[in-house]
Amino acid sequence: MRANAPEADPDVDDAETLRRARIALASVCEPGEPGLPDAIDTFGPGAVIARLLRSDTGLRVARKAAIGERLAALDLTQVLDRTEEIGARIIVPGDREWPHQLTDLGPRRVLALWLWGSADLRLHALRSVAMVGARACTRYGEFVAREWSAALSQEGVTVVSGGAYGIDAAAHRGALAVDRATICVLAGGVDNVYPRGHDGLFTQIIERGVLVSEAPPGEVVRRRRFLSRNRVIAALASATCVVEAAARSGAASTAHHAVELARPVLAVPGAVTSATSAGTNKLIAEQIAALAADPCDVAAMIGPLQVSDQPGERFDGRRSAQYREVIDALSVHAGRTATSIARRSGVEDKQVRAHLATAQRFGEARVDEWELWRYVPGASSA
Amino acid sequence: MRANAPEADPDVDDAETLRRARIALASVCEPGEPGLPDAIDTFGPGAVIARLLRSDTGLRVARKAAIGERLAALDLTQVLDRTEEIGARIIVPGDREWPHQLTDLGPRRVLALWLWGSADLRLHALRSVAMVGARACTRYGEFVAREWSAALSQEGVTVVSGGAYGIDAAAHRGALAVDRATICVLAGGVDNVYPRGHDGLFTQIIERGVLVSEAPPGEVVRRRRFLSRNRVIAALASATCVVEAAARSGAASTAHHAVELARPVLAVPGAVTSATSAGTNKLIAEQIAALAADPCDVAAMIGPLQVSDQPGERFDGRRSAQYREVIDALSVHAGRTATSIARRSGVEDKQVRAHLATAQRFGEARVDEWELWRYVPGASSA
Repeated sequence: MRANAPEADPDVDDAETLRRARIALASVCEPGEPGLPDAIDTFGPGAVIARLLRSDTGLRVARKAAIGERLAALDLTQVLDRTEEIGARIIVPGDREWPHQLTDLGPRRVLALWLWGSADLRLHALRSVAMVGARACTRYGEFVAREWSAALSQEGVTVVSGGAYGIDAAAHRGALAVDRATICVLAGGVDNVYPRGHDGLFTQIIERGVLVSEAPPGEVVRRRRFLSRNRVIAALASATCVVEAAARSGAASTAHHAVELARPVLAVPGAVTSATSAGTNKLIAEQIAALAADPCDVAAMIGPLQVSDQPGERFDGRRSAQYREVIDALSVHAGRTATSIARRSGVEDKQVRAHLATAQRFGEARVDEWELWRYVPGASSA
Repeated sequence: MRANAPEADPDVDDAETLRRARIALASVCEPGEPGLPDAIDTFGPGAVIARLLRSDTGLRVARKAAIGERLAALDLTQVLDRTEEIGARIIVPGDREWPHQLTDLGPRRVLALWLWGSADLRLHALRSVAMVGARACTRYGEFVAREWSAALSQEGVTVVSGGAYGIDAAAHRGALAVDRATICVLAGGVDNVYPRGHDGLFTQIIERGVLVSEAPPGEVVRRRRFLSRNRVIAALASATCVVEAAARSGAASTAHHAVELARPVLAVPGAVTSATSAGTNKLIAEQIAALAADPCDVAAMIGPLQVSDQPGERFDGRRSAQYREVIDALSVHAGRTATSIARRSGVEDKQVRAHLATAQRFGEARVDEWELWRYVPGASSA
């Protein structure tokens, strides 16, 4: 460890020194490994660093030799400089932006988080839902993730996901489509775009939402990091909703983390003939997850619906003239896409989606095969 | 009532006279109305007829004036002759073929049943499942109803349904496709083909299974008869499985009857974007029904799997050469239909379906978008 390291004088308990010590440990630890967080709270970060550097056998920390080696090689100034250089920030417990609910992770709690983006993490995580699922999802799952994410975002529920292909990306995009913040928790450093194909998506998230990571900038993704990352997603969000998942999947692991953390878990059912619904149907069958049939089921788990944060606009906007225009653009004879409804009604795309979500909830519209129909009770029932 | 009626001498308690009296009452009553079954058990069918004909005000039977009028106009000989003429039969409680479980219907129990078909009702209803659902079903529901019905039938579980278009017909056809009996409970008389388009289906059911009705031959279907018929389906079957249903549907009513009768209820989940899965997803969400992801879930509710009734063939036929031929006809690269697998393997279509059901259960085949794939664990998971 270079001369700029906080262990130079472990007895100095000035706040900034303690903070730097904690960040140094966060930079070299393996996220989610128990031992280190408890040791820090017992001895303080400076003392833990000192003990790790001299390979103190009394320290109850797993793989402490490896951590000590990484610590000795760490250039903390470089980490801090790189963080500042990209416009990212670091938060530690006690900071104003730190989400208190992460304490629920117990011995596997988070030491520090790197954030990159305009959105306030604590504020947005207060009423949030983790929308997770298969990378190799179907058009059905993608549709549900995107539409529900847009509807929930417009109700003031922030969508949290992992930035992966498939369900994760659709969930982030749904929120961005209605110009709301979204939280993306990464397995690697916030400046390490993974997957590469999501360069554009991450840029949008930085602009409107926030990228989150336990790892310092430059850190590459490792297989086990995906699993420990899932625990952060589950702990950050008020509830977890699995949209599509194969029988064994990362999404199911997030759901199990959420169960352990006593967070509500929901799953979207799907056809028994679809491999990507096998996992969600199983979560429901085993009563690990509640069945989510529409975004309201998700919102109900998070808490009572709140007034929209759009000034002057309540969530139940069924009395508005604009809402009626959207309903009139629906047909009982033909299914239409949201885009076509926006064109026919002259109402802006974002508003159309909000009104359609309301219409579905109040039984005035129905979705069938990804198209929207005007709903007349009894017309299509068996 | 004509001279041939049993009320001519209500004191004669000869078995045949009592039987005729009960059939006379069954011919004129409104199925499922309480009052009459209890009155018959209290006073005997002959005395009830006498009291109905003289409009006895002490008799606690709903709409007794209307029943008395119908009774006065009844030509019982004609009913019996017509039953014999078409080759049907009548069973009453105490008969060898009478299914004891109908007693569970309590005050709404069945007075008599008209049966038309080669299958023994009591025997086949012993291990049975009601497969019900929407008339306006989708290809998904039709596929599940037909395939599961075939798989369950081959395990010795008899499929009970209502002979309607959609799920009902697919369920009956699945059983017939593997040459097993199926029980079809009708709302009108057994000789009254409703719907007309199912003339051919009913002919096959008569040949291999059995048509069942509470109404005498010639009786037309009435709206309320469909609802009272649903209680018979629920009571006859060991469990009820709803395959596809809209939010409000007859299938949901059958499910609720089954719950009241303390029979297991299952529902097949489906896409939240499909109107015909709204009812099944709701039954699962409200924990009225267990989620059924494959035929084994249904079989598990009925009781332990039994040895197939095919001589010399056990249900787990995975060691047979024929089974391996079917597996070898599957591909990991391309989905195939059961028909194409039959052609490639040279194994008969019926056998292919049985082997494929086994293969799915043991994870050697998977179904995706109505095509079968060879399953290699992990290959398609997210």
